[in-house]
Amino acid sequence: MQPQPMNHTLPPFAPVPPEGVFAALGLLQLERSGPVFHLRLNRPAKRNSVSDELLLQIHTVVLNLPKDVRVLVISGAGEHFCAGLDLSEVSERTVAEGMVHSRAWHACFDALQYGPVPVIAVLHGAVVGGGLELASSAHLRVAEDGTFYALPEGTRGIFVGGGGSVRISRLMGTSRMTDMMLTGRSFDADEGQAFGLSNYRVAAGAGLAKALELGLKIAQNAPLSNYAITQALPRIADLPAADGLFVESLMSSIAQGDEAAKERVRAFLEKRAAKVSRPE
Amino acid sequence: MQPQPMNHTLPPFAPVPPEGVFAALGLLQLERSGPVFHLRLNRPAKRNSVSDELLLQIHTVVLNLPKDVRVLVISGAGEHFCAGLDLSEVSERTVAEGMVHSRAWHACFDALQYGPVPVIAVLHGAVVGGGLELASSAHLRVAEDGTFYALPEGTRGIFVGGGGSVRISRLMGTSRMTDMMLTGRSFDADEGQAFGLSNYRVAAGAGLAKALELGLKIAQNAPLSNYAITQALPRIADLPAADGLFVESLMSSIAQGDEAAKERVRAFLEKRAAKVSRPE
Repeated sequence: MQPQPMNHTLPPFAPVPPEGVFAALGLLQLERSGPVFHLRLNRPAKRNSVSDELLLQIHTVVLNLPKDVRVLVISGAGEHFCAGLDLSEVSERTVAEGMVHSRAWHACFDALQYGPVPVIAVLHGAVVGGGLELASSAHLRVAEDGTFYALPEGTRGIFVGGGGSVRISRLMGTSRMTDMMLTGRSFDADEGQAFGLSNYRVAAGAGLAKALELGLKIAQNAPLSNYAITQALPRIADLPAADGLFVESLMSSIAQGDEAAKERVRAFLEKRAAKVSRPE
Repeated sequence: MQPQPMNHTLPPFAPVPPEGVFAALGLLQLERSGPVFHLRLNRPAKRNSVSDELLLQIHTVVLNLPKDVRVLVISGAGEHFCAGLDLSEVSERTVAEGMVHSRAWHACFDALQYGPVPVIAVLHGAVVGGGLELASSAHLRVAEDGTFYALPEGTRGIFVGGGGSVRISRLMGTSRMTDMMLTGRSFDADEGQAFGLSNYRVAAGAGLAKALELGLKIAQNAPLSNYAITQALPRIADLPAADGLFVESLMSSIAQGDEAAKERVRAFLEKRAAKVSRPE
């Protein structure tokens, strides 16, 4: 038996006191369990559709995460994760206002993707339009039974504006995304898993427990490793190969020079750390 | 019950009168059904292999599509979709002539991919070499039972020259394409579906009806949405993420400012348009 470092489980989520900036975020439920912070979209009567105000509240949480948080989990209250953009705010926007609006979504979702901690989205019910754009800004996605994905922007006469053309096409391929947008096609949870939209498939109601289990694992990594994985990996993937290789060398040399890395490598060599095991 | 806009079916395809430029295109069968135009490769004795003349006829059709066409369907007559480049024309070409030839293929397939309307390819039998390059220039692919894919260029001592190294590698991944070219491996219809070569899998003989059904859906979208999906999405996918996001904002703000979009969003808000439904 190898000793397992910090091989415990986390307690259930408990509410975050509505103090300071968190007191003003009425469209969200905030909880935490140890190093894992949980942001739940809480606009179930509107299928958690993202109004300008909801977007701003999400962005505010990301900016104000307590310093000791190591992982952020995002989920939706009620029957759906998120049915997308609140269309009631679209119809009277000018082209110029539309540009500002889209850039605000980009700013929020960039803050998530390139923010301080890895993000796990827990999906159930509708993951539609802007909801799929939000989900694809997370680093991992856990999909429950009953999850379904669609991009109705094409049939509504509009176009994705929350980063979907960048992030969803990288997840599932441009051709599958083109199909969703041209035809209004929706995919179920298993299709989404096969096409790369989710990383984990769980039973209905089991998503948050899975996210907590994953969050614990991720929180045990060296912070610099998590930083490199979330910040460097997507940027390297976007670079021409020769430049990507050079940036990889920069990132890996910085990571291995860190004291946390040296201690972990010593632990492995002294047989104090778990070996890699076969998949379960 | 929500009212469904234009929720009808289209009549079967009927021949396009061989008038004007269409009178001179003896290697193709041209049909249409309402807004859906159908180009059938009609060189079955040669497994629809693409000679210089056949390529030119395809390109000519794309350039001369009637203005009221909204979707183009491409299929092949006989037992196969298209067995690729007509190799009988390859053997005597010089290096310089080969370059001109490859660029003519690129011009034709770019005209398809970035042409006036979305393109659906209906695949059956051999989708081989240049046939797979043609199919990958379409926006959607419907594959019938019996479809098979191969890239024999590697074993023939040549290389893809019709855009395959760009488009096929984006569809299925460079590693799978490398395998096909290095080993001559072929994939069947189900493998092609799993790897992203096709978007829809149907029974033998059912491809055209499926394309007509998809064509009707696509023809009902706002023209600017279809334009954004076919023109902006692949270009954004090729951009670094930060630049892709900016282009997405430009495209989405233009689309949402269009009157067709505003009417569709109003129809949704007034419950005159169908909601997104779970997959069937």
